[in-house]
Amino acid sequence: MPLDTHYTGQTFKQVGTRPLRPDGVDKVTGRAKYGADASAPGQLVGRILRSPHAHAKIKKIDTSKAEKLAGVKAVITAADLPDLTAGDHGMYDILENCMARGTAFYDGHAVAAVAAIDEKTARQALKLIKVDYEILPHVTDVDEAVKPKAPVLHAKNFTRGVTPKPTRPSNIAKRTEYGHGDVEAGFKQADIVISRNFKTEQTHQGYIEPHACLANVGPDGQGELWVCTQGHFVYRNTCAALLGMDVSKLRVTSSEIGGGFGGKTHVWGEPVALALSRKANRPVKLVMTRDEVFRASGPTSATSIDVKIGIRKDGTIVAADATLRYSGGPYYGMWAELGAMTAFACYDLKNVRTVGYEVLVNRPKTAAYRAPSAPMAAFAVESVIDELARKIGMDVIDFRIKNAAKQGTKSSYGPVYGPIGIGPTLEAAKKHPHMKAKLGKNQGRGMACGFWFNFGGQTCVDLNVQPDGTVNVAVGTVDVGGSRASLGLVAAEELGISYDKVRVIVADTSSLGHNDMTDGSRGTFSSSMATVFAARNAIAILRGRAAKMWEIPADDVEWKDGAAHAKGEGRGNLAPLSLKEIAEAAANTGGPIAGHNEMVADGAGVSFATHICDVEVDPETGKTQVIRYTVIQDAGKAVHPTYVEGQFQGGAAQGIGWALNEEYVYGKDGRLQNAGFLDYRIPVCSDLPMIDTQILEIPNPNHPYGVRGVGETSIVPPLAAIANAVSNAVGVRMIHVPMSPPRILKAIKGDKIGR
Amino acid sequence: MPLDTHYTGQTFKQVGTRPLRPDGVDKVTGRAKYGADASAPGQLVGRILRSPHAHAKIKKIDTSKAEKLAGVKAVITAADLPDLTAGDHGMYDILENCMARGTAFYDGHAVAAVAAIDEKTARQALKLIKVDYEILPHVTDVDEAVKPKAPVLHAKNFTRGVTPKPTRPSNIAKRTEYGHGDVEAGFKQADIVISRNFKTEQTHQGYIEPHACLANVGPDGQGELWVCTQGHFVYRNTCAALLGMDVSKLRVTSSEIGGGFGGKTHVWGEPVALALSRKANRPVKLVMTRDEVFRASGPTSATSIDVKIGIRKDGTIVAADATLRYSGGPYYGMWAELGAMTAFACYDLKNVRTVGYEVLVNRPKTAAYRAPSAPMAAFAVESVIDELARKIGMDVIDFRIKNAAKQGTKSSYGPVYGPIGIGPTLEAAKKHPHMKAKLGKNQGRGMACGFWFNFGGQTCVDLNVQPDGTVNVAVGTVDVGGSRASLGLVAAEELGISYDKVRVIVADTSSLGHNDMTDGSRGTFSSSMATVFAARNAIAILRGRAAKMWEIPADDVEWKDGAAHAKGEGRGNLAPLSLKEIAEAAANTGGPIAGHNEMVADGAGVSFATHICDVEVDPETGKTQVIRYTVIQDAGKAVHPTYVEGQFQGGAAQGIGWALNEEYVYGKDGRLQNAGFLDYRIPVCSDLPMIDTQILEIPNPNHPYGVRGVGETSIVPPLAAIANAVSNAVGVRMIHVPMSPPRILKAIKGDKIGR
Repeated sequence: MPLDTHYTGQTFKQVGTRPLRPDGVDKVTGRAKYGADASAPGQLVGRILRSPHAHAKIKKIDTSKAEKLAGVKAVITAADLPDLTAGDHGMYDILENCMARGTAFYDGHAVAAVAAIDEKTARQALKLIKVDYEILPHVTDVDEAVKPKAPVLHAKNFTRGVTPKPTRPSNIAKRTEYGHGDVEAGFKQADIVISRNFKTEQTHQGYIEPHACLANVGPDGQGELWVCTQGHFVYRNTCAALLGMDVSKLRVTSSEIGGGFGGKTHVWGEPVALALSRKANRPVKLVMTRDEVFRASGPTSATSIDVKIGIRKDGTIVAADATLRYSGGPYYGMWAELGAMTAFACYDLKNVRTVGYEVLVNRPKTAAYRAPSAPMAAFAVESVIDELARKIGMDVIDFRIKNAAKQGTKSSYGPVYGPIGIGPTLEAAKKHPHMKAKLGKNQGRGMACGFWFNFGGQTCVDLNVQPDGTVNVAVGTVDVGGSRASLGLVAAEELGISYDKVRVIVADTSSLGHNDMTDGSRGTFSSSMATVFAARNAIAILRGRAAKMWEIPADDVEWKDGAAHAKGEGRGNLAPLSLKEIAEAAANTGGPIAGHNEMVADGAGVSFATHICDVEVDPETGKTQVIRYTVIQDAGKAVHPTYVEGQFQGGAAQGIGWALNEEYVYGKDGRLQNAGFLDYRIPVCSDLPMIDTQILEIPNPNHPYGVRGVGETSIVPPLAAIANAVSNAVGVRMIHVPMSPPRILKAIKGDKIGR
Repeated sequence: MPLDTHYTGQTFKQVGTRPLRPDGVDKVTGRAKYGADASAPGQLVGRILRSPHAHAKIKKIDTSKAEKLAGVKAVITAADLPDLTAGDHGMYDILENCMARGTAFYDGHAVAAVAAIDEKTARQALKLIKVDYEILPHVTDVDEAVKPKAPVLHAKNFTRGVTPKPTRPSNIAKRTEYGHGDVEAGFKQADIVISRNFKTEQTHQGYIEPHACLANVGPDGQGELWVCTQGHFVYRNTCAALLGMDVSKLRVTSSEIGGGFGGKTHVWGEPVALALSRKANRPVKLVMTRDEVFRASGPTSATSIDVKIGIRKDGTIVAADATLRYSGGPYYGMWAELGAMTAFACYDLKNVRTVGYEVLVNRPKTAAYRAPSAPMAAFAVESVIDELARKIGMDVIDFRIKNAAKQGTKSSYGPVYGPIGIGPTLEAAKKHPHMKAKLGKNQGRGMACGFWFNFGGQTCVDLNVQPDGTVNVAVGTVDVGGSRASLGLVAAEELGISYDKVRVIVADTSSLGHNDMTDGSRGTFSSSMATVFAARNAIAILRGRAAKMWEIPADDVEWKDGAAHAKGEGRGNLAPLSLKEIAEAAANTGGPIAGHNEMVADGAGVSFATHICDVEVDPETGKTQVIRYTVIQDAGKAVHPTYVEGQFQGGAAQGIGWALNEEYVYGKDGRLQNAGFLDYRIPVCSDLPMIDTQILEIPNPNHPYGVRGVGETSIVPPLAAIANAVSNAVGVRMIHVPMSPPRILKAIKGDKIGR
């Protein structure tokens, strides 16, 4: 049976093919416009002054000398932004992170900013700003931060989610708990219990393009923002709120994006640029350096996770428990909560509990990083699963199949699953040739599973049929990974016209209704759903116009293969009217033809992956080379398989970097020591094998084409899969990521545990 | 009775007020982005080489030296654009005008173009292009051009609209005829007949901003164009057709516009810039100099018009006849046709005939200029009307009232009028204090009427309610004269919210359905109609959301004063839900809220004006000073009265310049001698009196608010009103516009007729 009809019974003509992406030529020829590529007459250069201290009270900021420097048009501090600390304003921490108010909480925290006529003047001006700091004790490690004597970041922080209310402030911002059954009773039934602590270091998304924007706000309270973002509508809403503007008065246009992976779902310099522009009454371009990106944009959490799992001898898991501590930087997040929700989501468990602690540290505010928080939890859980299976001599895949969640399983985070793909990915892994590949000396194989929720959210699409019958689809989800191509395929499929007659664009925030971000793997899922419905609305109008041209009732017109067909007796002589013919006549049949859709794209299907990985560890240097890697994931219907595979490979590649090398290294002074790609080592081509992929199309019943989100799940298993492979290769359980050469050497040279 | 309810019975809260325009602050502070204000990385400078000859065969163009110049990235000639001369392609003349193919037809005709890294290199490159011309005889005067021995521009041009088909080619491109009744029989009933020839010189719209664009086309056939235009959708369609691109693949964004007046409804350098960009694979910015604007954009026609009118002694017009010759430059237009249609449109005539001749001359292609062709026809007709009234000793207003068209009149161009305003404007003129102002020595008073069709056309509006309850309205009609303010008022009125919560933007061509241009006085008329309907569609959704929040049927929710109100028993306790409250809840009630409308805005009401003008003529120098000027016009409902008045004043000001000073002066060599504002004299502030205005709100029954177009009619009467005033002052009938000092001196010094 062909893949197309295997699950949904639906045959597609265009969806599932692999045409060129519309932004492809622009991107390879350099014509594509990224965040720093916009300019406006009279624009100024914005630069931010950042704290060199990990924790310091800002006693005074003297900007007078900078203001007097010729060419400086505006200097701002937190005093130029509204003070949202009073009351329960949900955005105060976003604002405070953009510009420190009273306290600098990390090395790189913004304390002032200037707008000047050129880069040189702006840098000079920064040097003229005098900040009087009182250095405070700091803490950067997630385990240190929760110790009783640790310096506390916020004197008013009493852990939320705990009863009774704690009596003293701490760095734990919130406690969350998920699960069901009776974990203690479960462990009593266990034949074997393994309990371990795992640790992961902070990593950065490592996108190629630094944050960049061009802001332009006038004295009339109207503004424009050109910005590299994963969600210009959300940036608009946030910036408008932070600057006290009406949402409709701020028009935000998203540039092409050189990667985001969650790091461009939060605002950083954008409110600063807007505030500078408003003060200077000139456009302000603000582009981060790589150093700033590392020190002051949002890396992922560092974590410390305890996992305890009990099984019967037959391999049945009887109890699973985890305590997860995730660093959030200086502000509250929901990182540990997401870890707690995802940790055991692959399994069908009777007794499960997860407890998450959001931990504040003197590091930059944590941001989302692709399937945020799930990879670390999976690393811990899948390591223990691997160890348990080996301990009872059971095949690691069979062990997982035995315990895998299925349709009807009550998930560890609450909801009951519909049709899901964890079982099929494991079955596919079992049959995959990778499992039969021979391993050589110093080589090991590991595998692991991963889960991500996926998300739907608010979505709008305007589809306009142009006068020559070609079609524009205006969407509001930023195209991060090829979604314009996918949405073009969907529009072409639904209308029945050729893909090359459709051009999808990302509309600005004033031209389309609100859209949530391209995050939660929602871009193609949600916008394709809205595109289908918009196209169907357009088809209803096209049918009506054909009816008008034929002078027959609209109900007697059906749409197929891109044309209107007249039904009914005596109409056999009416040749079908193509979309092009109807479009060309539109001016005389009622005007332009369009289809619109505004919706909440409910029902994003959950997604599962199984990864297999072979590594070779050099026993002399501790360097690990990934020699074979396979990703098997359920994607729902793969609209554009090349980009689905690209997501699979990209997630695996990022996971490999995270597992083996990437980490934020802080000195004792609390300053980041490797704020650049020379010292923060992301994988390069030679570090990676060709990553094999297998798409399983388990259709999502909530989407007209069965589409699921696909972008994030692929980064969830790698940490665990590689750790299991390395553990297998070196014979020592690796419990600290990244498994960089020094850590592996330490493990090989006698440590019982590879920390 | 207040003006609001006088005609329509409708009371408005916001429509009819005078808030600030949203683009106002940007424009006065210099932040507004015009055609030349966009930039792209790697952009080139485009420059056009123009013919120095009025008529010449292009024997050869050698671009090889220019191509070899360092920094030159592309050189094009007509050979780089598709040859559309074969077949009956409607656009061939537009294309040939953009880049001469084989023959240069006027001084300034484009013959080649370059794209280079900077202005200096581009200019150097132009000098290196060697064009081998064979100079041909030329003709620039409209009367000379129709003489039997005149040089003929196109050997294949046989006058269309004439039976039998002419046997020899001529410069008359087309003959059109309008009218009804029996003109010859009518003249036989006349007691008095006056017959005269009138002549007007070619004028330019004189917009402040020269044509400018930034073009960007890739090798994948996708492109973008930032351009100063009155209609970016139409530019898109034209450019896509000329370059062989799919319409959906060319995304056009309109800049702010520093005036258009019809001159920016045609493409000039834009297809050239796109072709250069495509060849160079780099963005190309092309900005015309003022010299180029004069020589090579589209001025209005020069005309020669014969008018013959017969009346009875009581003032009844019994026959009216006109023959109109309008220059079109080297290509076919419908300029004489429009003159023929409008000439007698103010009057209720039993026997009327107008014949128009489109005349080809070696001048730049004629373009639309505000109520195109009507002012010259009105000049001729209203001069004869004035002369006839004076001849029988009848008041010039009473004479016109006696003959004025009214509801039910069969117009001279065909249609039967609905409710119209010519009578009311004349009655208002009669009562106006201006008529009683005393005239001094060398002063004269004139008045005249004018007519314009107005137009509706294809129109799209997307109205998006943002998450904070503020509103964006995306329209596709370029805002030339304040329409964003007017449309904001209309959206606010319909939704029942405050004007300052609405921001109207002009969307790009990929984000909205096709819109016709801002021409034909259609901008506010058509887009306000579409805005009303889009708002009503949004209200239907808002009512549904309120119903969902209240859990009551949507039919039980009514919308008033910007809020949903629950109807029905027992619902008195339900406090109204404001638009803001419903918007803030939208994410949980179904997603973003929008209203859309795509339509053909049929039923633009015709418009009439009566102008009164007092002048003082200096008998020594012949200089005329306008000392008093009043515009009375029916506007339908005036959405934003300030901008209606501005249109009235602007049209009168342009008419004053045209009447008194502006003209293209060609040398015997066929070259334009005054291609700059130093030598082409448009009125400056000191040339103008404060122009008084009176808006008559004769509602247009085809528009939900009674709106009519208002922008163009105001330029129709001035030529005639001023000519009548000058004739009255100097005692000589002036029959040649402009009535510049030399012409007036000649008239004063003995010519019986002021030519």
